[in-house]
Amino acid sequence: MNIVFVSGSVVGTKTRRAITELKKVWLKQDAAAQIEIIDLKALKLPFCDGRHFLDYEEDVVATLKKVVEADVVVFGTPVFQASIPGSLKNFFDLLPQDALRETVTGIVVTAGSSKHYLMAEQHLKPILSYMKAVVVSTYVYILAEDFVGNDLVKDDVDLRLARLAEDLIFTTEAKRYIQKKQEEAYGF
Amino acid sequence: MNIVFVSGSVVGTKTRRAITELKKVWLKQDAAAQIEIIDLKALKLPFCDGRHFLDYEEDVVATLKKVVEADVVVFGTPVFQASIPGSLKNFFDLLPQDALRETVTGIVVTAGSSKHYLMAEQHLKPILSYMKAVVVSTYVYILAEDFVGNDLVKDDVDLRLARLAEDLIFTTEAKRYIQKKQEEAYGF
Amino acid sequence: MNIVFVSGSVVGTKTRRAITELKKVWLKQDAAAQIEIIDLKALKLPFCDGRHFLDYEEDVVATLKKVVEADVVVFGTPVFQASIPGSLKNFFDLLPQDALRETVTGIVVTAGSSKHYLMAEQHLKPILSYMKAVVVSTYVYILAEDFVGNDLVKDDVDLRLARLAEDLIFTTEAKRYIQKKQEEAYGF
Amino acid sequence: MNIVFVSGSVVGTKTRRAITELKKVWLKQDAAAQIEIIDLKALKLPFCDGRHFLDYEEDVVATLKKVVEADVVVFGTPVFQASIPGSLKNFFDLLPQDALRETVTGIVVTAGSSKHYLMAEQHLKPILSYMKAVVVSTYVYILAEDFVGNDLVKDDVDLRLARLAEDLIFTTEAKRYIQKKQEEAYGF
Repeated sequence: MNIVFVSGSVVGTKTRRAITELKKVWLKQDAAAQIEIIDLKALKLPFCDGRHFLDYEEDVVATLKKVVEADVVVFGTPVFQASIPGSLKNFFDLLPQDALRETVTGIVVTAGSSKHYLMAEQHLKPILSYMKAVVVSTYVYILAEDFVGNDLVKDDVDLRLARLAEDLIFTTEAKRYIQKKQEEAYGF
Repeated sequence: MNIVFVSGSVVGTKTRRAITELKKVWLKQDAAAQIEIIDLKALKLPFCDGRHFLDYEEDVVATLKKVVEADVVVFGTPVFQASIPGSLKNFFDLLPQDALRETVTGIVVTAGSSKHYLMAEQHLKPILSYMKAVVVSTYVYILAEDFVGNDLVKDDVDLRLARLAEDLIFTTEAKRYIQKKQEEAYGF
Repeated sequence: MNIVFVSGSVVGTKTRRAITELKKVWLKQDAAAQIEIIDLKALKLPFCDGRHFLDYEEDVVATLKKVVEADVVVFGTPVFQASIPGSLKNFFDLLPQDALRETVTGIVVTAGSSKHYLMAEQHLKPILSYMKAVVVSTYVYILAEDFVGNDLVKDDVDLRLARLAEDLIFTTEAKRYIQKKQEEAYGF
Repeated sequence: MNIVFVSGSVVGTKTRRAITELKKVWLKQDAAAQIEIIDLKALKLPFCDGRHFLDYEEDVVATLKKVVEADVVVFGTPVFQASIPGSLKNFFDLLPQDALRETVTGIVVTAGSSKHYLMAEQHLKPILSYMKAVVVSTYVYILAEDFVGNDLVKDDVDLRLARLAEDLIFTTEAKRYIQKKQEEAYGF
């Protein structure tokens, strides 16, 4: 199982920390999981200029291919101007429209206020639907006050992240089971 | 498998016809399926007045219970004032918040213009997500011009409806497979 | 100036109380204002059945005409299943598509949680835009905890309601000024 | 009157052409208007990294200040992955939250399909509202097929652009009239 977590912010540390925490709780459930973190802050990706994704520079292609080939992708995002940041939107733009077809996707939001809770419904899920992703409906919304000191998040955040990991794992298994049944049904 | 189709309009015939067509194509794939159509036009439901759903009149309770107990629910809706009609929104209001928990849901929209295509993303899916439904992402959007005469829809509509039926059937099977695995994992 | 406040809920008392409070603060600014409250809880309107709005029963027509003829309409709404209630959506359905053309509109939301703050952006404003309303962008979002006892709301709610009233009054004046200038420009 | 048009795409030419056409029809109505076009394709702006907008490089600051100081801003946008492009979202991120306070804003969308018509309601208007803009509700949605050859758009597009220009001009005049009245009311 190819698992990729995208930390969609190029500002601050909270989204990266939330994604890192998700990796920690995921590994508790599934110690053998191979999880790759794509941190947009570290990568300095270019703006999408309309090229096919395989025609970008080599390291950009390598990054995008990780997402295209993943079985599971979790998008971590802060809230900028009541929506996802330009860096994350640009990441979607760099990908082909069907990059997430059959990919099981999850969402982790870090925010300063609970007033933006529906941002994920309004801005992020419609993009994932358009890109043909299987979207795990329940997302984890983490407030600034849920972070304690430098590395920790409150216990209930861990519980919610663990639940997201579980949902993603089971949904992926379900998808595989179905693909196998479909292949049998169509006689492949 | 308990299958319920809700025809969410109390005006006109297109939504009901689309839902009836979905039943026809579903039965071609799965002749033994028991599909119940709840037609809000026929039912004369009251406005939600805040009561628990089991405290309404007997026939209202009977209708709502069909949805609560269903494994699969498809919501058919026209577009009124760029959103779902009040009759369908009221139907959601009559149900308890977790009425659709673990329920696999699909969407069929009938519309006069393709300009409202994103209405399902914007208005309907966030309601289904809030009610904890498993939402099959791809919906069938049928234009007035896709209806021919009284009983027919164009061939490509049938293909899209058949694809929705297949998605719903496979997603429901997947959900069952997972529930069984979860029960085993937790030792029930 | 024709001012109409719609209390969009048929359940509970908070939306009506918020709307009543808005009337109180409005009258402090503009003691001569004629404000009519349309309380959907009191009215028992039928579901929209597709008729032209003038073809409904006499009292229904009288109610709808108040909105069609208003210069300013404020919609008060609770949050039901993460959206506006069916009663309010049905009220929009009863009106013709251009019922709010040139009408200055404002929004007051009563809610149990700040998590639904963006509901007005996602569900209500797109309907008002479709119906050609002039939408005053800033809305008043009142939490259950902002109500104190039976008749009061906290001071900051009054301040926010007063600000909404002021926005609506000035926007209406601006619209009139413009209409006069347009009529002059076109030589009417 | 400071007028700024933002061409929000870094790919292709349609958005820029639509914005240029808007300038042409605007100047027909108001030959003396000073309209500045900010073309994100030409500018190579950096990703927002959390700095205050005045702390970016000199040319970036100069660009952002044009928007902050404008009376009217029109945002031209293509549809990428069912939303605004990352380049335009990043432009909003670079601006302070209240950059558009009291600014009259309009929207021009270029798209390949009418199915994304509601994208402006769902993705763009909530951002403008959050940034405190005065949003002119009716936007111009231009399909690829509305462009003819290299420089032209169909007549009805020009009519719709002219209507947008008129709306923006009158709304700005109205806003000024109101500000003057408010200043008088408060005795400034």
